[in-house]
Amino acid sequence: MTTSLPKTPNIDCVRSAAVRIQSHVVRTPLLESPHLNAIVGGRLLVKAEPLQRTGSFKFRGAFNTLLQLSEAERAKGVLAYSSGNHAQGVAAAAEILGIKATILMPQDAPKVKVENTMSYGATVVHFNRYTESREEIGKQLAFESGAALVKPYDDVRVIAGQGTMGLEIAEQLHELEVSPDAVLAPCGGGGLISGLSLAIKAEFPDAQIYSAEPEHYDDTAQSLAAQRIIAVEPKHKTICDSIMTPEPGELTFSIIRNLLSGGLVVSEEETRNAMCHAFNRLKLVVEPGGCVALAALLSHKIDVKGKTVVAVCSGGNVDAALYAEILAG
Amino acid sequence: MTTSLPKTPNIDCVRSAAVRIQSHVVRTPLLESPHLNAIVGGRLLVKAEPLQRTGSFKFRGAFNTLLQLSEAERAKGVLAYSSGNHAQGVAAAAEILGIKATILMPQDAPKVKVENTMSYGATVVHFNRYTESREEIGKQLAFESGAALVKPYDDVRVIAGQGTMGLEIAEQLHELEVSPDAVLAPCGGGGLISGLSLAIKAEFPDAQIYSAEPEHYDDTAQSLAAQRIIAVEPKHKTICDSIMTPEPGELTFSIIRNLLSGGLVVSEEETRNAMCHAFNRLKLVVEPGGCVALAALLSHKIDVKGKTVVAVCSGGNVDAALYAEILAG
Repeated sequence: MTTSLPKTPNIDCVRSAAVRIQSHVVRTPLLESPHLNAIVGGRLLVKAEPLQRTGSFKFRGAFNTLLQLSEAERAKGVLAYSSGNHAQGVAAAAEILGIKATILMPQDAPKVKVENTMSYGATVVHFNRYTESREEIGKQLAFESGAALVKPYDDVRVIAGQGTMGLEIAEQLHELEVSPDAVLAPCGGGGLISGLSLAIKAEFPDAQIYSAEPEHYDDTAQSLAAQRIIAVEPKHKTICDSIMTPEPGELTFSIIRNLLSGGLVVSEEETRNAMCHAFNRLKLVVEPGGCVALAALLSHKIDVKGKTVVAVCSGGNVDAALYAEILAG
Repeated sequence: MTTSLPKTPNIDCVRSAAVRIQSHVVRTPLLESPHLNAIVGGRLLVKAEPLQRTGSFKFRGAFNTLLQLSEAERAKGVLAYSSGNHAQGVAAAAEILGIKATILMPQDAPKVKVENTMSYGATVVHFNRYTESREEIGKQLAFESGAALVKPYDDVRVIAGQGTMGLEIAEQLHELEVSPDAVLAPCGGGGLISGLSLAIKAEFPDAQIYSAEPEHYDDTAQSLAAQRIIAVEPKHKTICDSIMTPEPGELTFSIIRNLLSGGLVVSEEETRNAMCHAFNRLKLVVEPGGCVALAALLSHKIDVKGKTVVAVCSGGNVDAALYAEILAG
């Protein structure tokens, strides 16, 4: 079935994915707060994807991918490597479809992500994020079991699935009868922002789209500026565990290099501050990596005075202890 | 305009309110988590009203009331007493309509509620919850200014406004093609549960409806059991600040005594536990008083094995320090 996929995903792939996964995804709301509007000086709409099944957008791409596996592929199971959100997305999608899932997770992944992944019936294998290659271990495991590897971002089906969030945002903006001047989303390997930009640009060609990343992991911002893939050294610790990716994917970058207006970078303090605003004003639990786009707007990385902007909050899987510490300031 | 109101609200009042306030309320989502389903052994749908404008359902009733004031009444301003959520609802509604609002709040109201109320442009007057009568101070202030008192629950317009949440739940259940076996909501003076029960019973006559209250403030449970209004002594401290009401309202009780199947009571520990579940599984910030219905289900106060139940989480205005302490266990 996968032979009919184009090499690069297009808007038709995203629209097909939306139909395919519709019955199982949550149509997450666009939230708005007069206080946050006042901070940015414009109209700020927040896509509340922590309310998605598994607590992040990753379920969209994982489910879209698994639904396109053949019966023979499904029988051999699936394999994924992930710091946690893709893990949960794949595990939950596999559970729904009755597929065996094995997930490679770093030893220092947030406890809540490991526990949740196991709760969907997946087998979790740990590796050391700083000394071992998850790609190598993944290949070895896939070779032994014959399981299909579900890549975290550089895959047509995954990108199309994540892009369904962009179609939802567009639908919701049409319902509100507004056009966005800008749309911002957190960015790790680029699966979300590439799919999202396909959808947003199809519906609102004039909207500017920006990726948001944490300091030290601004590979996408650097790559967009240089118009070629630039890698960063993933040696720094960050609270943004879900998006500490060293470089954009080849496929994702081939899409976003043409569609994005730039990459924004936020400090850890700006991210913590945005998480507190999401708590106080939106009543939404957002994990650090899921909050960097909101952080970019609340700390004025671009001027949106008098404009309408959308910030994607992409996930909410944060350990209670860290969250409590951040709220306590 | 208020002369055409019936003495007791009926389903038509609720339907009219829904049309009246539609443009300004958030249609909050019904959330679901496989983990919470597993705990109750049935299908648990959570109405996520912390995502409502002002962070609680109170905006619905306040806005519905203020929209029905005459021009002459609007010119004199409005007055309300509230521990915080009704305060914010009235203040936000008044700001939208350009009406001056004065709010009486207890000195020990959560800081976030006081700050938010003031941020909507309202004047806040403090009183001592344990030694002064808010009703007396309110009457005096109303007498001096001629401002219209917006009661927190015992008012046809307020009850009808809160009931719009029930119509939304019914719509959402129809979309999911399920009928609820039971619907639970937190209960203070009864404004929400009375309006909600009018709406739910109109759409699903067989659904059982339960109020939920914290220990020491189980006046509604006692009153329902006795079939007459019973007051409790409001001498205990509780984290459930928003629903520490000593007795049900006359109007609200006249509705719920016939429509409810009973009142459930939860401990503080059960409430804290439910708040952690809402954090971990729903990514939703719920305040203590807003979480007692969910707490009642998660601690098995009624048996819902194999059934479909709705729990209303009614608000999310909790101070960060308390929330952090609760998450830390």
